[in-house]
Amino acid sequence: MTQTEMTWTPRTDLALEIGANLQAQSQNQAIEGIAIQTENHKQYPITTTSIEILNEVGEKAMGKPIGHYITIESPKMKENDPEARREIIDVVSTQLQKLLPQKKDLSILVVGLGNRYATPDRLGPDVSGKVLVTRHLKEHAPDAIDESINTVSSLTPGVMGLTGIETSEVIRGVAENIKPDCIIAIDALAARSPERINATIQMSDTGIAPGAGIGNKRKQLNAETMGCPVIAIGVPTVIDTATLVNDTFEHLIESMLAHAPDHGFYTMLQQVSGEEKYHMIREILEPKLGNLFVTAKDIDEIMVYLSEIIFNSINIAVHPGIGLDDINKYSN
Amino acid sequence: MTQTEMTWTPRTDLALEIGANLQAQSQNQAIEGIAIQTENHKQYPITTTSIEILNEVGEKAMGKPIGHYITIESPKMKENDPEARREIIDVVSTQLQKLLPQKKDLSILVVGLGNRYATPDRLGPDVSGKVLVTRHLKEHAPDAIDESINTVSSLTPGVMGLTGIETSEVIRGVAENIKPDCIIAIDALAARSPERINATIQMSDTGIAPGAGIGNKRKQLNAETMGCPVIAIGVPTVIDTATLVNDTFEHLIESMLAHAPDHGFYTMLQQVSGEEKYHMIREILEPKLGNLFVTAKDIDEIMVYLSEIIFNSINIAVHPGIGLDDINKYSN
Amino acid sequence: MTQTEMTWTPRTDLALEIGANLQAQSQNQAIEGIAIQTENHKQYPITTTSIEILNEVGEKAMGKPIGHYITIESPKMKENDPEARREIIDVVSTQLQKLLPQKKDLSILVVGLGNRYATPDRLGPDVSGKVLVTRHLKEHAPDAIDESINTVSSLTPGVMGLTGIETSEVIRGVAENIKPDCIIAIDALAARSPERINATIQMSDTGIAPGAGIGNKRKQLNAETMGCPVIAIGVPTVIDTATLVNDTFEHLIESMLAHAPDHGFYTMLQQVSGEEKYHMIREILEPKLGNLFVTAKDIDEIMVYLSEIIFNSINIAVHPGIGLDDINKYSN
Amino acid sequence: MTQTEMTWTPRTDLALEIGANLQAQSQNQAIEGIAIQTENHKQYPITTTSIEILNEVGEKAMGKPIGHYITIESPKMKENDPEARREIIDVVSTQLQKLLPQKKDLSILVVGLGNRYATPDRLGPDVSGKVLVTRHLKEHAPDAIDESINTVSSLTPGVMGLTGIETSEVIRGVAENIKPDCIIAIDALAARSPERINATIQMSDTGIAPGAGIGNKRKQLNAETMGCPVIAIGVPTVIDTATLVNDTFEHLIESMLAHAPDHGFYTMLQQVSGEEKYHMIREILEPKLGNLFVTAKDIDEIMVYLSEIIFNSINIAVHPGIGLDDINKYSN
Repeated sequence: MTQTEMTWTPRTDLALEIGANLQAQSQNQAIEGIAIQTENHKQYPITTTSIEILNEVGEKAMGKPIGHYITIESPKMKENDPEARREIIDVVSTQLQKLLPQKKDLSILVVGLGNRYATPDRLGPDVSGKVLVTRHLKEHAPDAIDESINTVSSLTPGVMGLTGIETSEVIRGVAENIKPDCIIAIDALAARSPERINATIQMSDTGIAPGAGIGNKRKQLNAETMGCPVIAIGVPTVIDTATLVNDTFEHLIESMLAHAPDHGFYTMLQQVSGEEKYHMIREILEPKLGNLFVTAKDIDEIMVYLSEIIFNSINIAVHPGIGLDDINKYSN
Repeated sequence: MTQTEMTWTPRTDLALEIGANLQAQSQNQAIEGIAIQTENHKQYPITTTSIEILNEVGEKAMGKPIGHYITIESPKMKENDPEARREIIDVVSTQLQKLLPQKKDLSILVVGLGNRYATPDRLGPDVSGKVLVTRHLKEHAPDAIDESINTVSSLTPGVMGLTGIETSEVIRGVAENIKPDCIIAIDALAARSPERINATIQMSDTGIAPGAGIGNKRKQLNAETMGCPVIAIGVPTVIDTATLVNDTFEHLIESMLAHAPDHGFYTMLQQVSGEEKYHMIREILEPKLGNLFVTAKDIDEIMVYLSEIIFNSINIAVHPGIGLDDINKYSN
Repeated sequence: MTQTEMTWTPRTDLALEIGANLQAQSQNQAIEGIAIQTENHKQYPITTTSIEILNEVGEKAMGKPIGHYITIESPKMKENDPEARREIIDVVSTQLQKLLPQKKDLSILVVGLGNRYATPDRLGPDVSGKVLVTRHLKEHAPDAIDESINTVSSLTPGVMGLTGIETSEVIRGVAENIKPDCIIAIDALAARSPERINATIQMSDTGIAPGAGIGNKRKQLNAETMGCPVIAIGVPTVIDTATLVNDTFEHLIESMLAHAPDHGFYTMLQQVSGEEKYHMIREILEPKLGNLFVTAKDIDEIMVYLSEIIFNSINIAVHPGIGLDDINKYSN
Repeated sequence: MTQTEMTWTPRTDLALEIGANLQAQSQNQAIEGIAIQTENHKQYPITTTSIEILNEVGEKAMGKPIGHYITIESPKMKENDPEARREIIDVVSTQLQKLLPQKKDLSILVVGLGNRYATPDRLGPDVSGKVLVTRHLKEHAPDAIDESINTVSSLTPGVMGLTGIETSEVIRGVAENIKPDCIIAIDALAARSPERINATIQMSDTGIAPGAGIGNKRKQLNAETMGCPVIAIGVPTVIDTATLVNDTFEHLIESMLAHAPDHGFYTMLQQVSGEEKYHMIREILEPKLGNLFVTAKDIDEIMVYLSEIIFNSINIAVHPGIGLDDINKYSN
């Protein structure tokens, strides 16, 4: 699971949530250095938001590097609704294709980040274990394979706690050998809003930091460290417990103030900044909760839907000009 | 997973937590109708607390039926420490034996409650799937089996959402056919304190209500509904999100008051009862969190340790006069 | 996994294989008491064979009770081909519907036989764990559910070696309580031909004998023992090792004779009957192979396809007048 | 799963079986270039056989490279007998230690070969996922860790059919980055004798060829290709179907000849060499059985015992001077 560099902002990996936060603060004025665009699906509740961070001003405001961030949201992602799922795959694959290098004979390395033994963190391994790989066929049986099929390989590096090796070291070692044009890295994320859990897919062309601590640039997976562009695909599957408590607390205070608006409490709250409050909550929770997180009751089943959406979207996006049913014929 | 009838008390299944709450309120005076006794292991951090609810006064105070409630606590339960695990099994099996009917040729039905497809809820199915069963051997090959081996069978009824049948109906149907002397029902529970998650085993001789709503007596598993005593073994594996937020909020208010003791806020808080606050939090969280809960990051691994502790403790307790290594010889 | 009563015929659970054997022996003449009919799918390699055992003559010849046996064969069952899978589901659900009681307000109990902890035997539990159940909705929220939805519940009784209870006892106990109009029992089978493994679905309205030994009538699941019709759905997932060796041996002898036709060996072979040879092979293999069987390398993945075919076919067959996508809306 | 270069010898990965074959052929005379030594455990049925291939003569006779091959056999490996398991771990770890480089501050890379999604082939991934890793602790928290703890990391490269990358490429890429003193590679094997399935551990210091075809030297994992010694640990979990049929056939012929010794068949059989017969069987079986193999009914459970034996043996062997219970304290 990925941890981003934390500003005081309650913990989220989603550009969308950071952007929404900024927009709320700027009272919906355009924010310098950032372009935001939203599109709704005609038939299903599927929303696509593109955020482009244009320059260093935007970079600083967002706390994320210059590049494209595409977020697809749909409550249908976590439901057993095959028809809606097909539409979501259609949207995700179309957006993903825009982020891929536009060249012929593309070679892609799909990397599944995260821990397969922790259910909400197994998204990456589930995808890298199921995506259609073709590199060995292209090498050993090129005639048996359609021309429009590109070169795909996959890697599931594991997590440092179980391998003793930094994830980026494993990936770099393999990437140096097989020299892909692009890495697609899939990871489970943390989000701030309960509504977004298991209902949001974020893609970006700026890379990702698997399990990174604060400011540890070395561990980043990006064009600089890997020698090729890194597209990150993430889905928030957990909420950080302190963030959840913090947000509930904010709502609670609003409710209480609605009942007793003239209260001196308001003054006190103004003295306590958001950051201070968040840290107080962490202080209370940390010793007890270090190892706990908030997740969905039916996460085991939802993971099946989410991985299906993502590996199918990758299959379609990386092999343009060939349908999903035809792609499946190449699967082992 | 079991849900108890809820008084306003933040959601817990643990008699221990309710008792502690009562003791705090009574300022450690003896509470009428309740006898509490605590014992510490000599070598390992293992604490055994016996609560006996003696009469209707105790029943009302605790919100739980008359009977024995034994709680064993140890942080070692969730660690990969085989030596400590052996000691815990020793303590749990000794306590469990006290709750079993004291008769020869005992026949036990072990029932694993909960949903095997949701990791923190799969404790019951994991235990009922691994406990040593002997009923078929006693029937079909009685000579092949040591005399001190009692009759054990097991059942994993599933959850209503996946079977369409009330769990108690399934169990009663089977119990009517095989007529055990006693049912041992295992279930995952919810607790209030983060420290107790995956670190507490509660046993009682008063039965259990699998997935019960409020006041739905029909669904209880107990001597009355099953025709034989029902021993419940439970381990808290999740915290209800609203409870966690509520408790953190209480601590937070204490912290804030420590910084600003003369504040009018205190007055306001006195006006807001614990119950009101809890319900406000539920109101805020419910629509968003209905399907979320707090659990351990390494729950998949911890489940292996917990089920091992419980099925081994049952194996030892129900076959007195035979060692664990000998018992294992009968396992298929 | 089901074991049928064994005549000397090499071990198979498939009526189709027994029928083919009889037809070969009768040199494709009609066999008394048996009606066989075959139909091919127009587009996909899907073959449907209906065998009706009409009377006691047929019963004796087939070694199976009077009734309907429908076999659907397709190599596509074991492949990752969603389009072909949809066609197979269409064929299976249509055939299954013919076997179901033709009445309004149907109540079905789906029973998943077999051992979920042994991959080739987990078909039953996989289906009963995934089929759409509605009985609790019909009881507790009848207004929330479409009229054309029938009453479905499911049960996963486990295997005697892990529960200590005979499977039929568990099912009967539950069936007595919920009184379904019909039981659908799913089980993994053994087949004779390698080609049929994971590529054949057999359905019959005559019940099934889970893990039955020879001639143990008491353990049968059928209308007589369960109080309602029992439809069996089975898929061969393993080959008995002795059967495989025996069949290969036959082919080998044919090959060798082709090379040396005038050999005295032929005389010797005529002296050794099929039955003798099979028992010699069993004698050689039994002590070493008691616990071994022949299965597919990618059985884990194939099980996902097979269970999807069967639970979807049941979902469609038991709720006529409602599409699969609408059915899925009621899932958990 | 590993495939060795095949001489005509029916398919086996076990040096022990090849050696036994040679000894049978040489009528128990010493075989040039090979030293064989056997030792029995005093209390448990555990046999240790050391085969040393001394020179090119032995290399040619065995069809395996010069080096040490240690085989530990025990039927107890596949049983739920914790006491016997502890003894087996003791024997395996002692033998493994002999094969490890004898130096201070050892750095080991444990590589789990095979496919985690195919049960009999998941031994490697199960071990590499559970072995205690320390490399990250040595790097990031050297003070928190006992001096006698060596540097261990692990890698689960996956299989080419699922990754598109040759296994050896993945491993070399990582090994070049972390430069271990030694690689320990674990893999599931094929054996010839049913009795040896899941009851034999083979270790050697000559490397291994994951999924290698015939004569493809490039794919070998050994000192030459990896830049450090490669110790292979393998357990046979399947029998190749053609081998099983071939061996049964041999026994069958012996049985038949015992009944009719003067038969001309004997002459014919002498004309059919072992190799011819094996290839005839393959020809018959191949088209039908390409994807089938022989495995144990309870392979899922046995895999738990086998992986426990191997990862614990590695834990003990690579950290001499520290007990297993202490080692476990470092596990995450």
